[in-house]
Amino acid sequence: MLHAVVIKGCFQDSVTLMVVSRDLSANPQVNRVSVMMGTPANKSVFRETGLWHAALDAATPNDLCIVVDSEASDPATADAMAEAVSARLAELARGKRTAGYPVARSWRRAQQLLPEANIALISVAGHYAHEPARQALESGCHVMIFSDNVSLEKEIELKTLAREKGLLLMGPDCGTAIVNQAPLAFANRIPTGAIGVVGAAGTGIQEVTSQIARLGGGITHALGLGGRDLSERVGGISALTALDFIAQDPASRVIVFISKPPAASVKERILATLQAIGKPAVALFLGERVIARNVGNVHFTQTLDETAALAVELAGIDSRLAILPDVSGTTICGLYCGGTLAAEAAFLLAERLAVETDAAHPDGVMLHALGHRIIDLGDDSYTRGRPHPMIDPSSRNDVIAKLSDDPAVGVLLFDVVLGYGGHLDPAGELARAVGELRLARGAAAPLVVIATLTGTIGDPQDLAGQTRALEDAGITIAESVRAAVLLAASAVSAKPASAGEAPPLLRETPAVINIGLRGFADDLLHNSVRVVHQQWEPAAGGNERLQRLLAQLN
Amino acid sequence: MLHAVVIKGCFQDSVTLMVVSRDLSANPQVNRVSVMMGTPANKSVFRETGLWHAALDAATPNDLCIVVDSEASDPATADAMAEAVSARLAELARGKRTAGYPVARSWRRAQQLLPEANIALISVAGHYAHEPARQALESGCHVMIFSDNVSLEKEIELKTLAREKGLLLMGPDCGTAIVNQAPLAFANRIPTGAIGVVGAAGTGIQEVTSQIARLGGGITHALGLGGRDLSERVGGISALTALDFIAQDPASRVIVFISKPPAASVKERILATLQAIGKPAVALFLGERVIARNVGNVHFTQTLDETAALAVELAGIDSRLAILPDVSGTTICGLYCGGTLAAEAAFLLAERLAVETDAAHPDGVMLHALGHRIIDLGDDSYTRGRPHPMIDPSSRNDVIAKLSDDPAVGVLLFDVVLGYGGHLDPAGELARAVGELRLARGAAAPLVVIATLTGTIGDPQDLAGQTRALEDAGITIAESVRAAVLLAASAVSAKPASAGEAPPLLRETPAVINIGLRGFADDLLHNSVRVVHQQWEPAAGGNERLQRLLAQLN
Repeated sequence: MLHAVVIKGCFQDSVTLMVVSRDLSANPQVNRVSVMMGTPANKSVFRETGLWHAALDAATPNDLCIVVDSEASDPATADAMAEAVSARLAELARGKRTAGYPVARSWRRAQQLLPEANIALISVAGHYAHEPARQALESGCHVMIFSDNVSLEKEIELKTLAREKGLLLMGPDCGTAIVNQAPLAFANRIPTGAIGVVGAAGTGIQEVTSQIARLGGGITHALGLGGRDLSERVGGISALTALDFIAQDPASRVIVFISKPPAASVKERILATLQAIGKPAVALFLGERVIARNVGNVHFTQTLDETAALAVELAGIDSRLAILPDVSGTTICGLYCGGTLAAEAAFLLAERLAVETDAAHPDGVMLHALGHRIIDLGDDSYTRGRPHPMIDPSSRNDVIAKLSDDPAVGVLLFDVVLGYGGHLDPAGELARAVGELRLARGAAAPLVVIATLTGTIGDPQDLAGQTRALEDAGITIAESVRAAVLLAASAVSAKPASAGEAPPLLRETPAVINIGLRGFADDLLHNSVRVVHQQWEPAAGGNERLQRLLAQLN
Repeated sequence: MLHAVVIKGCFQDSVTLMVVSRDLSANPQVNRVSVMMGTPANKSVFRETGLWHAALDAATPNDLCIVVDSEASDPATADAMAEAVSARLAELARGKRTAGYPVARSWRRAQQLLPEANIALISVAGHYAHEPARQALESGCHVMIFSDNVSLEKEIELKTLAREKGLLLMGPDCGTAIVNQAPLAFANRIPTGAIGVVGAAGTGIQEVTSQIARLGGGITHALGLGGRDLSERVGGISALTALDFIAQDPASRVIVFISKPPAASVKERILATLQAIGKPAVALFLGERVIARNVGNVHFTQTLDETAALAVELAGIDSRLAILPDVSGTTICGLYCGGTLAAEAAFLLAERLAVETDAAHPDGVMLHALGHRIIDLGDDSYTRGRPHPMIDPSSRNDVIAKLSDDPAVGVLLFDVVLGYGGHLDPAGELARAVGELRLARGAAAPLVVIATLTGTIGDPQDLAGQTRALEDAGITIAESVRAAVLLAASAVSAKPASAGEAPPLLRETPAVINIGLRGFADDLLHNSVRVVHQQWEPAAGGNERLQRLLAQLN
């Protein structure tokens, strides 16, 4: 039998509703419970789910509605229920009074209590989110709307307003953001690092940032957009603002962009923006197949874990670059003794440069494009009458020596292949050749030298000793040919314009006015973020006609 | 000025030639040195490189030819040179006499010395490799031809013979193989593990196996093919034999296949074979763009490091599967609270099943194909009037409970999302729900449960405690959604037919007859491999007409 209780003028957030709901569910006589505010939409849900009760008829959006399907047919059940709910609400209210942050009844009051507030975090029912969001934007605050069920028209209206004011509107339906370590709504505790995240995928951001942390990386910020931002009609307004902010932020050295596949025109704009920014970037359009692995500085991935791993790798490359000499030469010369390693380097560099490798490789030249060269010195044309360079490093050393005449080469790439059959000290031989080359080129033509080291600790050459020999000669060791090409391409790329100061939003820990779910304010407080909670309820008791009249009077 | 020395009847391998060459180069008066056997091809090289000397005219392939371009014009220079070379050759010969393995003058004698020999490793000049290879195959030995410059016709002839005899011919131009820890030619010391490698890329095999070792994995064997095996004309004869051997080998639980892109028809045959074998496999066709990430059990990668990483991951999955219950249910049910995580699981599972995901997701159903389902329980249809399952796990638990009626489900997948905003003990709630479900299903319908855990050690839920709660409930934790889908798909896949015994070649450490470069025999000895070195020189002093006559007499 259905029992209903309506408590008038008692607006509650959804977490409170859940607590009440669970209290009631715990009663073994109770089959089903529904606890909602009396909005028109919620009333429809009561109807559709077979929990309609005549008592709900008069309920307004400001009234707490409780319907229970119970074994008990006693009408006193409803009274007992009402009493239990009231007691629990009183208990919750007592807890809230000792929250540790101020509570305001209006936006104006909240601003007085926290004049430096620069973000409004809004989680009221979607139907009502528009109004506080507009108010916040007009007061010059950035806004995050956690609420869903905001109409597309309202979203466009708010985002247009935000853009005009140079503000960021995250959401609606934005579940996750982190600004300078402040967790907004659903967010994990992520170490500070070099990666700036922008995304239209709540748990996607949570998973990627968590994986970044697991891999030893960290983030600057994670800015959410909401699921519709990249649609044709919204046009990525928030995405472009967020990318602009991250572009200006000098601490964000690597960018991660995550979303479902955007509308074609929006995707084009996002990619053009990422390329214009020039910082190394990873873009995941989840569900879309990757054809090219990268377009210039923008790398594409297919899964969340690959996105995190590549971002951490790019951040590592960025730190490595910082300690390498700035080179004036702009081309890469790869001199390989391993044919497959040369082929891989050529393939990856060609992809990076958006050129094709030839099927034919005259004289072992695997790639020769835009001044870059990758050469397989194990090719027949080098080994006729001479031992293979894996056995005798001198043939490669001769080619290395000739780079003294070629100041255009900024990066020298090569492989060091250990193992049975090969030379017993390839690293020593290469270190000597590189030392002589550097001497011949002089200080005016600095050179970045990157080696890959194929081999294991069990090999006869002594992996540790070979590693040391390379490092002592100022040769950078990359973990794979892929990593070597990434690093090489970055070393000869134009550095992104060094940003001055971060935009105000990203400059320091935000100050937040929280409107809606109390728990979000608790979490901010727990993270030492200045926060004021605005105790929000629909104006005019949720009566829409009255609301419109009030709006006209204001 | 050019000086020449020709030492008659003194066949030397290429490493010896290198040692001599370096000795001479060390003389500061010497500009260039060339040291080669007097084959017609080498004589052309002397001519093309401007080092021709009339003394070479009469040289045969069995004569050691040395030409030096020196500052010294004194004709005594050549005499001094000849003396130095003879002294060094004598010294090297003394070293070889104490090598520690028997040396034979003929194949027959070598076989007498090592009757259990099952591999011939051939590294004589390519022009001559055919004869010893044929002899070895006819004696029932597998063959690895390190030498290059073997004609395509000879390669096909030898491979056809090998196939008829059920033998593996690796090469020609096969730089690397490892059979039961025995390094053949260029190879690294790789720990023993579950990954069987087959490849037509020498340094590719070295790099992948080294990366496997670096990642903590290991290999069973690495079988080389030579660069032309996958061409249209050769048709992958050796590749198919190698795959057949690895398929039969019960220790090889995961297969890696590496090559440049094969001819289309050959590629098709290779892929069909890998699919028929059914073991998890990683295929890298270096330089080819990957469109689908996998076809059934065959995964595609684009770089050597990705190949190694995925192979190690698949081997890890294989060991994990071994300790999970065998399930009778054949479908996967994914119940997600994170929308992006659900989308990723659906995308990856669809790719695995070669089905398409729909753009529309009625009731949060991200995928429903072949009985498998991935559902986003954060979808509106589940949260109308109820809190989001990230806040209140009970809504998901209700759906989990219903799986008691669905014995077709063999794997339950879900996400556990930690962080601010979410429930404080999601793992505990899920552990309880899974326990109840297992009880309800009973022993007759065992279930594999796989969770991903989004979160960090800084999160309010206590990552370690949440991990423990899941593990204690017999829930397997995957490192990412990608890993979870891989594991889930493997758990419901038909297990590859359990092989009986490995083929003879792979059963134990091989016994090798080494023909050509002495160093390869030294390396085998160093690895406790039984080896006999066959001191090879061209028959009839390299006179081809005489050789043909001799062949007719035999």
